[in-house]
Amino acid sequence: MSAQNINAQRIWNTLMEMGDIGGTEAGGCCRLALTELDRQGRDLFVKWCRDAGCEISIDRIGNIYARRPGTDPDALPISTGSHLDTQPTGGKFDGIYGCLAGLEVIRTLNDEGIETRRPIEVVIWTNEEGSRFAPAMVASGVYSGKFTLDYALNQTDAKAIRLGDALKEIGYDGDIEVGARKFAKFFELHIEQGPVLEREQEEIGVVTGVLGMRWYDLKVKGVSAHAGPTPMSYRKDALGASARLITALIDMAAARPDEDGRCTVGELHIPKGSRNVIPGDLSFTLDLRNATLEGLEDMEQEAHALIDQISTEAGVEVCVERIWDSPPIAFAPECIEAVEKVVARSGYSYRRMTSGAGHDAVNISSVVPTSMIFVPSIGGISHNETEYSTPEQIASGAQILFEVMRDEALA
Amino acid sequence: MSAQNINAQRIWNTLMEMGDIGGTEAGGCCRLALTELDRQGRDLFVKWCRDAGCEISIDRIGNIYARRPGTDPDALPISTGSHLDTQPTGGKFDGIYGCLAGLEVIRTLNDEGIETRRPIEVVIWTNEEGSRFAPAMVASGVYSGKFTLDYALNQTDAKAIRLGDALKEIGYDGDIEVGARKFAKFFELHIEQGPVLEREQEEIGVVTGVLGMRWYDLKVKGVSAHAGPTPMSYRKDALGASARLITALIDMAAARPDEDGRCTVGELHIPKGSRNVIPGDLSFTLDLRNATLEGLEDMEQEAHALIDQISTEAGVEVCVERIWDSPPIAFAPECIEAVEKVVARSGYSYRRMTSGAGHDAVNISSVVPTSMIFVPSIGGISHNETEYSTPEQIASGAQILFEVMRDEALA
Repeated sequence: MSAQNINAQRIWNTLMEMGDIGGTEAGGCCRLALTELDRQGRDLFVKWCRDAGCEISIDRIGNIYARRPGTDPDALPISTGSHLDTQPTGGKFDGIYGCLAGLEVIRTLNDEGIETRRPIEVVIWTNEEGSRFAPAMVASGVYSGKFTLDYALNQTDAKAIRLGDALKEIGYDGDIEVGARKFAKFFELHIEQGPVLEREQEEIGVVTGVLGMRWYDLKVKGVSAHAGPTPMSYRKDALGASARLITALIDMAAARPDEDGRCTVGELHIPKGSRNVIPGDLSFTLDLRNATLEGLEDMEQEAHALIDQISTEAGVEVCVERIWDSPPIAFAPECIEAVEKVVARSGYSYRRMTSGAGHDAVNISSVVPTSMIFVPSIGGISHNETEYSTPEQIASGAQILFEVMRDEALA
Repeated sequence: MSAQNINAQRIWNTLMEMGDIGGTEAGGCCRLALTELDRQGRDLFVKWCRDAGCEISIDRIGNIYARRPGTDPDALPISTGSHLDTQPTGGKFDGIYGCLAGLEVIRTLNDEGIETRRPIEVVIWTNEEGSRFAPAMVASGVYSGKFTLDYALNQTDAKAIRLGDALKEIGYDGDIEVGARKFAKFFELHIEQGPVLEREQEEIGVVTGVLGMRWYDLKVKGVSAHAGPTPMSYRKDALGASARLITALIDMAAARPDEDGRCTVGELHIPKGSRNVIPGDLSFTLDLRNATLEGLEDMEQEAHALIDQISTEAGVEVCVERIWDSPPIAFAPECIEAVEKVVARSGYSYRRMTSGAGHDAVNISSVVPTSMIFVPSIGGISHNETEYSTPEQIASGAQILFEVMRDEALA
């Protein structure tokens, strides 16, 4: 690993100080979107950025833009950022790491007295998690034109509070048109939230895109019957058929030639389950993912073939409904290459990889050349109070982000 | 099929008239134990039996004994019977068929002017279903010494009403010691409640015993993780492992050389299921049955081997607890042979078979030579308002019971 420009201790301390806002006894963080704690976090971030010489702008959905000016008044900024909100029992790294690493880039540029041609900008995207207000990534969605501003402002939480009202309440209802603030390029640094980098002992993930995903609801109808009087060969066992089907679907995803097949059954419900009754009805969910549209199509076709085959053999009916389709995202080649060039010369070990989870960068990539950088998550754990990355890992990601943004902003 | 002694129309009409007490719009019956409807059913049964010349006795748990005297005052009776209570949404056949077929035996003996050496006795066992008061088959259990009378009388329903109080309320708290009433032999005629006779186009089942069963609770612990960022090979998927295990357990039961292996998973629960999260924890039930203790032991051992193998391969922990063990019941050979002899000469098609469900006859068999006779259940359906057997099937079972009891009582 190369000599560092960034201050490893400073970014770590900054991250820990921010983590105290909403910090939990178990070491995690609960800082739901547009709450008083979110306001405190935003205030602290804004103060730090102002102290580092940034201009602060806020748009009508509460996205915060902290800008370190460049020498060319006409040049679009090189931007980075992520989110400040957490899951209800989240950690101190997911999202906020990417924001504070952006601040560390600015502080380091200041320390080194570097003037860039392009501005450097750090963005906090409102309500990424979707824990308080659905949908997730709503504000970057408005930025990119996926959602209208009215739609986003009228989303309500579990207590029927409007997002727009909560935003006003914490004083972050800005007046800049959402999406009016343009970027030359956007880079998002994030913890991996998965086990790949740690298991493969790689220090940096050069993220080339985000898996597409399709969600399905399946209903399986067999014949409910008494466990005792019904011989095995006479059964139309909805759970037995589903167990066979889930096994086959998982094996199908695991056997794909690409590394990016994912098959998850997260929910399974037997409505009138009783231990001595063969289930006649049940439902389960299916989540299929792949890095390419072709891969996703293949998996869907294979899934349908398995459903047909296994339901016929088991004498049950399976009804499949696709309820959501999110296409794979390929990040901008120039952004991926810019990151890879820096990582390669830095001496950090790395791999190209896809993100399995969604990020604000997915929305931004539809309007601005974008890519992402990952650092390892210990144990692959995230959305959990035990979420952790080491100070060294935190520093290495910030260093890569610094070099990428400096080089891009100088150019 | 041979000429009939019994009156097919009469037994059918008797069954339908009784079914009107608690009869439901959908054609089923709801006559819960020790309710006003149970009392009405008992009163009607007692009236019919008295009209047929029977002496009525009632014991302290409400079992009703209707006796047609024999010529030998010292001879123990040949007895039959079943239960009058139903499931909440039960049918018109389960239980009461066996009681009214016993009445038809007596009526036919009267019609034909036959005097038997031994008395003929028809018994109604209180609270067989266990729907209102747990456990099921409680009164035949007291008769056979499995439960104490106090235990049974102190069981309470969902409204905290004692069984003993409900019994008193309907006026069927008799004074005969439970179990004091002895039998020479006991035969129970019942609908099959399964699909075997219908599918194999056999008219009569000569029941040789009842499957033993063992119930287990399984807890599976993997690692919960995000569906997207976690490649298939890194997962410790509690549901994926369970699906594989359930498939293997079902295949194991289906592949047994005996015909009597049963494996049922009736309940499966994912406590914090979410469609895009790999399940880290779940529980499911397992019900294993076999006709012999050796078979049941074999199945349990094979299940443990499959659990060990699949949990190791999947990287999950499986905790298994056996929560109930009910040994297989072999009925008395002399009773089985008595039935088979009659069926064979009758011309009805038949097969020897085991019962997968429990019956009062299981309890009685521990103190008296006992066996059972089955007639087909249309569609194998029972404990359901659509439960049905045809008038011909009802008549054929009653005819077999008649001949068996007549021959045994004459001997």
